[in-house]
Amino acid sequence: MRLFELAGRDDLRFSPHCWRARLALAHKGLEAETVPVRFTEKQAIAHSGQGMLPVLEDGERVIADSWAIASYLEDAYPERPSLFGSAEGHGLARFVNQWSAATLQPAIIRCIIKDVYDHVDPMDQGYFRESREARFGKSLEEIQAGREQHAAALVAALLPLRATLKAQPWLSGPAPRYADYIVFGAFQWARCVSDFAFLGPEDPVLDWRDRVAELFDGLGNSVVSAAN
Amino acid sequence: MRLFELAGRDDLRFSPHCWRARLALAHKGLEAETVPVRFTEKQAIAHSGQGMLPVLEDGERVIADSWAIASYLEDAYPERPSLFGSAEGHGLARFVNQWSAATLQPAIIRCIIKDVYDHVDPMDQGYFRESREARFGKSLEEIQAGREQHAAALVAALLPLRATLKAQPWLSGPAPRYADYIVFGAFQWARCVSDFAFLGPEDPVLDWRDRVAELFDGLGNSVVSAAN
Repeated sequence: MRLFELAGRDDLRFSPHCWRARLALAHKGLEAETVPVRFTEKQAIAHSGQGMLPVLEDGERVIADSWAIASYLEDAYPERPSLFGSAEGHGLARFVNQWSAATLQPAIIRCIIKDVYDHVDPMDQGYFRESREARFGKSLEEIQAGREQHAAALVAALLPLRATLKAQPWLSGPAPRYADYIVFGAFQWARCVSDFAFLGPEDPVLDWRDRVAELFDGLGNSVVSAAN
Repeated sequence: MRLFELAGRDDLRFSPHCWRARLALAHKGLEAETVPVRFTEKQAIAHSGQGMLPVLEDGERVIADSWAIASYLEDAYPERPSLFGSAEGHGLARFVNQWSAATLQPAIIRCIIKDVYDHVDPMDQGYFRESREARFGKSLEEIQAGREQHAAALVAALLPLRATLKAQPWLSGPAPRYADYIVFGAFQWARCVSDFAFLGPEDPVLDWRDRVAELFDGLGNSVVSAAN
């Protein structure tokens, strides 16, 4: 198998979506060669018929999108540890995936967007700045300069996650499953590029994040450059 | 069994938490006598050791809190249809419960708080106005007058739910379970007291809400007074 991943400066792998695919593979006990792809090297995944990372190749199969990759792995390798556990585990994990995309990640990006830029490969920085500044209608520096205010939206976004993790060890309940990796991906993204501290030392979300990072022989701790 | 429920003007049952308990009982195929309790009649549930509704009595057992009631019913009646389906179904439903409490319901209440007041029993209106105006630091009329602006937060809060329901028939996946009833409770609350339309006719969330209302012989449609 080959997993095409977004790569930043010094080959840093910070993409939240790629981290999900990595943890999904590890949960299934599957090995994949990872292939670094920069934002402006998307011709490397032209065979996937789209331009987003990650892309998984499994023999002749080419699967794009982290959610589709997790669902593919679950179906293709049913004898290995389950990523979802059950039909309702799959259904509710989809909600978590959409919550992360619509609520959590938008709240995080406003706090770390200049830090992401600083960790993008130099060949991608022009593309990254232009596309993101067009999307937000502000400079990267202006967006991130407001992060003390944006942090309030992030604190609000984290409330349901925190309350859940006060009551049970993993987001998925008694054992970690793909829903945990979805949300971990968003935190890992921030942690890989930024020292902006939005989780206090006593926060059960921080404790959970660190426990996810320790899974699979500390996979989540293997590629972190920032101090966070 | 007896289910103590919040009752409003003309005995209207609009509480989101009480709707959850009602649907949980129906899912399990259990019958309970419902006992109406007004906000200022909380002595009726003093035996539960707290002051919030719903409260379920099952023989000698007294259980308060809709989440605790659902978990109790699941454990006490394991041979009946499962509310959660699996351990991860229970774990992720807890996240949905917290998301509804921390994100969805606060976005809804700012749009309908005066409508709720109008449907509270007259004996409770003084209590309701005083407690809510103290909490928000504004009059009920001022809060609701801003609802065209507050609706933007509600639209944002609904994004993950809408995206999920575009991809699968129920929030819980292929079949309705307690996570569906959690979120339905919040919509039913709004629908029972307000005609504020925040779901367009083509919205898959509206279609899903109406399908939940039709479950159990149209239980959710049996008590609605508003046109919504």
